[in-house]
Amino acid sequence: MNPEGTIGTLVLLRHGQSDWNEKNLFTGWVDVPLSPLGEQEARRGGELLAEAGLLPDVLHTSLLRRAIATVQIALDVCDRHWIPVQRSWRLNERHYGALQGKDKKQTMEEYGEEQFQIWRRSYDTPPPPIDPDDEYAQTGDPRYADLGDALPRTECLADVLERMLPYWQTSIVPDLRAGRTVLVGAHGNSLRALVKHLDGIDEQTIPGLNIPTGIPLRYDLETADDGDLRPTNPGGTYLDPDAAQDAIAAVANQGR
Amino acid sequence: MNPEGTIGTLVLLRHGQSDWNEKNLFTGWVDVPLSPLGEQEARRGGELLAEAGLLPDVLHTSLLRRAIATVQIALDVCDRHWIPVQRSWRLNERHYGALQGKDKKQTMEEYGEEQFQIWRRSYDTPPPPIDPDDEYAQTGDPRYADLGDALPRTECLADVLERMLPYWQTSIVPDLRAGRTVLVGAHGNSLRALVKHLDGIDEQTIPGLNIPTGIPLRYDLETADDGDLRPTNPGGTYLDPDAAQDAIAAVANQGR
Repeated sequence: MNPEGTIGTLVLLRHGQSDWNEKNLFTGWVDVPLSPLGEQEARRGGELLAEAGLLPDVLHTSLLRRAIATVQIALDVCDRHWIPVQRSWRLNERHYGALQGKDKKQTMEEYGEEQFQIWRRSYDTPPPPIDPDDEYAQTGDPRYADLGDALPRTECLADVLERMLPYWQTSIVPDLRAGRTVLVGAHGNSLRALVKHLDGIDEQTIPGLNIPTGIPLRYDLETADDGDLRPTNPGGTYLDPDAAQDAIAAVANQGR
Repeated sequence: MNPEGTIGTLVLLRHGQSDWNEKNLFTGWVDVPLSPLGEQEARRGGELLAEAGLLPDVLHTSLLRRAIATVQIALDVCDRHWIPVQRSWRLNERHYGALQGKDKKQTMEEYGEEQFQIWRRSYDTPPPPIDPDDEYAQTGDPRYADLGDALPRTECLADVLERMLPYWQTSIVPDLRAGRTVLVGAHGNSLRALVKHLDGIDEQTIPGLNIPTGIPLRYDLETADDGDLRPTNPGGTYLDPDAAQDAIAAVANQGR
């Protein structure tokens, strides 16, 4: 249907600060709202899209309100609030298992820095699974009813990649192949998984890659010889490169 | 696919006050935001849905931000912000033609009360068409690009019914027949047209029917002998009947 080599444009937008980012709690699949700063970041994201004339034709989001609200605010600012939208749990943040709802600082003190960093940044070691009766488990949440026993109780980044990719292939790629500008509004780890796939980043490197919040990241895609979509601008292009660099440096310095 | 007689539930929600309602301007297809009062009405709508346990499974809206924002706020309040959504110009407000952007009081003084009331309330007499170059025409608006020359330049209520019904039949009815609870977030005249169809109201009566803003109106639907969907509660049921009655009385008294 779509000619070989058709180029679509992908725009990634990580949600702004949530109430729990502000309180330094592990969030994962807990559905907390944006903080006032997060709403401001979302508006800035919309302004950057408008200034760049990078106007999305279609939107994909997770099922979590911090991502849904971020893109809704950003799209309203750039006058694209009316575009078609699809939402999927496959774009959700990584499930943080038993850590969900826990204070990050307390967790580090309780389990030690090494274990803490493994849970946060290991590619293939998930935190302990959450008790289904825990108040921060998603047991019985109607939005995940279709998942049944497949409802995650914890996830590592490898798990996120595995559940995100089918959605990428079946729902997002067709929009890109049709030449559309596609906005994906999602989370630190679901976007990290997507960037790993797009840029072919290895398992050792990807946990250290940080995508700043609220700054649209643009990928121009073409069909490669093997038929897959491949970025013509590897690594993508931030709409505000200086702010992105500052934000990435700030996160890198946090760990020191 | 769906068994005969399956009952779906339809919930209609008219957007709250917009900036231009507040300023007493004809709005139509001009895409103005909600006022702070309108946002408050939307939150109240969400609280009523939550209190009634009437939780939508799927959402249909117009392409106008006052309707999109109203349902987004209401659904966030009742924790259903993640449900699937479809948007269509066919649920837009009536196109007010050359009156769009005009002050209602000035228009009445300029053209006289009789002409004014015909434009506002006639079933089949539209206002004069808007000039395509008018700042309040939708010429070149990308969201209506598919309409081409069919882009409305004015509409009467009969026109709204005619363009709304195909969307009702092909997009909303299938959701209802699947037993879903369907929220339609729209406008005074697109909802009036839908209610005319559902309740079989005649052309003389329908222009006088007023649907209050921000109060969800519930219809329980069953398959009638002729195969059409028919309300088991003709006229529908407002989730806050007292507030609805007060609002309807207030509008009726405005004309005196």
